[in-house]
Amino acid sequence: MRIVRTVRELRAALAEARAAHSGAVRGGVHRVGMVPTMGALHEGHLSLVRAARAENDTVVLSIFVNPTQFTEAADLAAYPRQEERDAALAAGAGVDVIFAPEAEEMYPAGFATTVRVAGPLTETLEGAARGAAHFDGVATVVSKLLLAALPDAAYFGQKDAQQLLVVRRMVADLGIPSRIVGCPTSRDPDGLARSSRNVRLSAEERGRALAIPRALEAAARALRGGARDAAAVRAAAEAELAAAGIAAEYVAVVHPESLEPLERLDGTALLAIAARVGGVRLIDNALLGEPAAAGPGAVGQAHPARPAGLSASAAPADPPAAGAKPTQRTDP
Amino acid sequence: MRIVRTVRELRAALAEARAAHSGAVRGGVHRVGMVPTMGALHEGHLSLVRAARAENDTVVLSIFVNPTQFTEAADLAAYPRQEERDAALAAGAGVDVIFAPEAEEMYPAGFATTVRVAGPLTETLEGAARGAAHFDGVATVVSKLLLAALPDAAYFGQKDAQQLLVVRRMVADLGIPSRIVGCPTSRDPDGLARSSRNVRLSAEERGRALAIPRALEAAARALRGGARDAAAVRAAAEAELAAAGIAAEYVAVVHPESLEPLERLDGTALLAIAARVGGVRLIDNALLGEPAAAGPGAVGQAHPARPAGLSASAAPADPPAAGAKPTQRTDP
Repeated sequence: MRIVRTVRELRAALAEARAAHSGAVRGGVHRVGMVPTMGALHEGHLSLVRAARAENDTVVLSIFVNPTQFTEAADLAAYPRQEERDAALAAGAGVDVIFAPEAEEMYPAGFATTVRVAGPLTETLEGAARGAAHFDGVATVVSKLLLAALPDAAYFGQKDAQQLLVVRRMVADLGIPSRIVGCPTSRDPDGLARSSRNVRLSAEERGRALAIPRALEAAARALRGGARDAAAVRAAAEAELAAAGIAAEYVAVVHPESLEPLERLDGTALLAIAARVGGVRLIDNALLGEPAAAGPGAVGQAHPARPAGLSASAAPADPPAAGAKPTQRTDP
Repeated sequence: MRIVRTVRELRAALAEARAAHSGAVRGGVHRVGMVPTMGALHEGHLSLVRAARAENDTVVLSIFVNPTQFTEAADLAAYPRQEERDAALAAGAGVDVIFAPEAEEMYPAGFATTVRVAGPLTETLEGAARGAAHFDGVATVVSKLLLAALPDAAYFGQKDAQQLLVVRRMVADLGIPSRIVGCPTSRDPDGLARSSRNVRLSAEERGRALAIPRALEAAARALRGGARDAAAVRAAAEAELAAAGIAAEYVAVVHPESLEPLERLDGTALLAIAARVGGVRLIDNALLGEPAAAGPGAVGQAHPARPAGLSASAAPADPPAAGAKPTQRTDP
């Protein structure tokens, strides 16, 4: 495994891997998979690496604590950084190249460009709670990471469901030639969604935080029990949180692709929760009303073998060819 | 020559060209050059095609009248469209593939992403005159066109000097792996900068419009005569315009890369002019204080053999590797 710090080195490493592959496999296609992370790797990241490993010849993991997506200086400062441990975990999971740039490599002096996704995808939920700059930062850094490696596929966790939707939209809109793969939320055996921020929870806080996956279960139970009113489903989740003394930032029942608020649950819905437990801000979500895969039935399911959940509605990397005319040939 | 309407067809055509090339030239590199245009091709566009032809194996010309960069509906409606004539001209100049998408291919339903370059590059001159949406539209559509073809190099005219700077900044900031080549302004024998909008000038207006290149010459003459005060240089240009009854939107003396206003002309400066002649808005510019190439000495010089002017200060496609650490290898 190799650690590179610059886009130039990353591209050289990938060109080398491609050349070695074409020598080994005559005429074969060399596939690159990418797992963008902010480091502090845990089992959730490693499940993304395994998904990438299964589908690609070379796996790149990026580690970059992107300052532009933090809207709170304290959260950025407290974000765990442990590159040596991350490198050992990545190597063990089969990563070929770690791309770990300094901030100056990503944002050199004079940097002036922002990629922005407009509308409910970025303005609701995390966008409303953390400010518009958060998803501007996400969309910009992900576009840069994808353009640096030009992977065939990039792997994102369903735990950050809104981020996954924003990335899908941005990649389709700009036409970045990478497939975006959503992978199910990885959970500890007790149900808590894995997050790099979990290490900052005290034992008592961690116990209380379990009310979040319980709230997702309670909402699913209400739905199974016949509730179709979004307010009733939300109330079931909120009761679990309240019982643990957690005041949520939001408990939202929204359309799983547009993120627009739903009044009634007739098809699939995304239930999204953000809450502070002690000083730590946690988010979690579940797809409600989906028969299989990463609905709340998946809560507690630690490492499903293959990507599911929102990835079932994977958007193609190419924008739809609406109104396209057939290819023409002209004879000048 | 082939005309394609969708990104998918464009990529297929380029893959075909690449495969044919690798069959013909064992192990050789296949280079793609791209010339983004809004159609209504003239000699200026064809000079970009020739520059692309000289350096690449396959030349793509895009024709797309991008609605999002027009801030005046009337200007968009009046913009000349003549695809059959364009196709004949392009074929004659050696274009291999024309990419001529419909608006629905570029901006399908649900499109929500904008690429924005902030600061003086987009907020001054054309940005101030046409509104911030203009360069948002330019940066977004150019990023999409480049990502559709992933050319080795893309060719832009120095006539749209500010657009060239915005594109260079955006490409460097996002790390789009294409070299941006600036080519000198192409002029009619009488000195008027070639523009698709020129066809809308009456004979009388066209005569008056020649005051614009004369104003660039007058400013250069003032500089050669010892003027160092930007106001004096600007006044020389404004006097030429006033004599022809042209009230300029702006006559600006700015830094040729940052576009920040200059008080004194100690190094190179960009003199930029925008003016309406009759109902037609024209822009032109010259580099002042540059010994050779596309300074005002180049006014009247119709088709210089090689890119010059701002391309002399071409920014590399990769952002500078400031603060980069050397490559490391780890043994897990």
